[in-house]
Amino acid sequence: MTSTDQRYGLARSVTLPGPLRLDGGVLLSPVDIAYETYGTLDPDGGNAILICHALTGDQHVASNHPVTGKPGWWTRMVGPGKPIDPARDFIVCANVLGSCMGSSGPASVNPATGRPWGMAFPVITIRDMVRTQAMLLDHLGVGILKSVVGGSMGGMQALSWPATFPDRVRAIVVIASTARHTAQNIAFHEVGRQAVMADPKWRGGDYYGIGGEATDPPAAGLAVARMAAHITYLSEAGLTEKFGRKLQARETKTFGFDADFQIESYLRHQGIAFVDRFDANSYLYITRAMDYFDLAEEHGGQLARAFRTSKARFCLVSFDTDWLYPTAESRAIVHALNAAGAPVSFVELSSPFGHDAFLLESPELNRVVDGFLKART
Amino acid sequence: MTSTDQRYGLARSVTLPGPLRLDGGVLLSPVDIAYETYGTLDPDGGNAILICHALTGDQHVASNHPVTGKPGWWTRMVGPGKPIDPARDFIVCANVLGSCMGSSGPASVNPATGRPWGMAFPVITIRDMVRTQAMLLDHLGVGILKSVVGGSMGGMQALSWPATFPDRVRAIVVIASTARHTAQNIAFHEVGRQAVMADPKWRGGDYYGIGGEATDPPAAGLAVARMAAHITYLSEAGLTEKFGRKLQARETKTFGFDADFQIESYLRHQGIAFVDRFDANSYLYITRAMDYFDLAEEHGGQLARAFRTSKARFCLVSFDTDWLYPTAESRAIVHALNAAGAPVSFVELSSPFGHDAFLLESPELNRVVDGFLKART
Repeated sequence: MTSTDQRYGLARSVTLPGPLRLDGGVLLSPVDIAYETYGTLDPDGGNAILICHALTGDQHVASNHPVTGKPGWWTRMVGPGKPIDPARDFIVCANVLGSCMGSSGPASVNPATGRPWGMAFPVITIRDMVRTQAMLLDHLGVGILKSVVGGSMGGMQALSWPATFPDRVRAIVVIASTARHTAQNIAFHEVGRQAVMADPKWRGGDYYGIGGEATDPPAAGLAVARMAAHITYLSEAGLTEKFGRKLQARETKTFGFDADFQIESYLRHQGIAFVDRFDANSYLYITRAMDYFDLAEEHGGQLARAFRTSKARFCLVSFDTDWLYPTAESRAIVHALNAAGAPVSFVELSSPFGHDAFLLESPELNRVVDGFLKART
Repeated sequence: MTSTDQRYGLARSVTLPGPLRLDGGVLLSPVDIAYETYGTLDPDGGNAILICHALTGDQHVASNHPVTGKPGWWTRMVGPGKPIDPARDFIVCANVLGSCMGSSGPASVNPATGRPWGMAFPVITIRDMVRTQAMLLDHLGVGILKSVVGGSMGGMQALSWPATFPDRVRAIVVIASTARHTAQNIAFHEVGRQAVMADPKWRGGDYYGIGGEATDPPAAGLAVARMAAHITYLSEAGLTEKFGRKLQARETKTFGFDADFQIESYLRHQGIAFVDRFDANSYLYITRAMDYFDLAEEHGGQLARAFRTSKARFCLVSFDTDWLYPTAESRAIVHALNAAGAPVSFVELSSPFGHDAFLLESPELNRVVDGFLKART
């Protein structure tokens, strides 16, 4: 490994011996971490920014996805001239523990058996993901982070950072996120998990070949799970604006069960495209981690206590049409930060696009993040 | 058939020769209609009230369900001393066309083959359901209805009545409903249909025995569909109040995939209980009918035109936490009725229970319906 590699978007992975003690009590060893870095770490190590990805995201934040060939998932925020800029920042983005893009997860090989873990992989938490990121930063020689930035589940990790490693991060950006999963959040995830598990091809999670490849995965169940989740990422108004009751190319209803409405074929496409790039068991594990997430519960039931020893300043952003993690959830975090005496700025942005807004073109979001990261403390 | 049977809640069915011309162009013959009546038709025929049921409802509005043994689904509204009272009213409730409680549907025998229709059953519409109800009323000797009353999909039928048979109904009660399915409504239903169709036991809808019984139906897929739909019937606030993040009886998380949270086991129960009483193909057909529903589209794109020749007065009720058919949908109907010059009263009631509120104890709802039905015109 060279720490000053000049290629833009350097995909790497590292196997660390661990063991990593997980919240569930299991000792995980070894720990594979797949990650990308952009830019160069300053000699004083002061320019490192960790970006945390969402449920189905990955380390390819600003470089092409190796499976789909599509541009990185946050090139609007990360790249030359963007708020997070490799010319200035040393940017690290790691595939979360439990995922399927190279980090340890249910498709990884269980050293005890020599075969893929499947459902024998230990259940993980958001905090376990954060601990894994800290192990990677140790490996990269990064001590204190300039900032941790994340949207959605990435925001959960960003929030968990100052609670877990209060001395290692100076600024936190939390976008379209929450400090705990509500009953409705859990309910939608449970529907998705049940859809996967109802697929006979799931086989109790044991659908991998020797190397963890899945030639006949529970694609139908995972597609249904993705479709249900996708509805929660979009606003009702956005759906109406984009699709309304518009029919497919044909002009009249078919009086059949083909996708008559554009929203139907859009959702079916979302489901089908997803299964090509994501592992069903990883979907189970990561949704579980999100449902378990309750930062207050980890700190005696008081969210403010999670930030008691934090030395970071915070930036919270919500979107007015996000009904998955509505503004009220961000506001609850802000109140807790206020109670803890932590510096925090908070803005609710207007967007027709619901939860997905954090991934879309948003000059306001870029201005907020840019201003926050550049501010002198 | 005796038209003055004194038993409370008389379950009957009739096979009418038809043919019924469906909106999709098919001529359906014969047409089975399972129904219940309560009370006695006045000699002048002026006291007949038709109650229309919702997606998974049935004709057992105020008498025990033959499969579950549970009380009728609307005993809070229909019964002695209730707003709709068999001592005063002749109450008719029919299982909708396409359903599975005795009326013609995909589990019925196709006379052309002598075997169950399955997916060869024609796609139906809300208006087709209404036409079937009119055939039943002809059979029962009911000319003009005192009222048509319905909630949710029942409200769609109630709205469709004055548009389809303007001379046959004097009062319309529409509760927690809409004049058209939105993109988000369609999206949730499409997830449910895909869940059913993804179940290998669905077998293209051909899972019946000779008589229409289903010994090995696509239960897993239908349960997932029900779970997803069920979330939309409840409000976020109601879920939080009822379940929050409360764990099951055990005190700590299991770090596994059992139902740790109460909301998970509740949803699983909802899914499992549903498949015992409902047919998966009927679920496909009825959700399709709801998605096709757009009363304005049936009348040149102007909702007011649907009520142009109506002679009825209207009562609209919405619930403030109903996000499936929010108050704005009822308001749009009220505006159209105003434009059509139809008498209408409208109230938004407050409830923590979301869409399901129309089925629950609600003294305010009872007062509104009681007052409206008793008002002199």
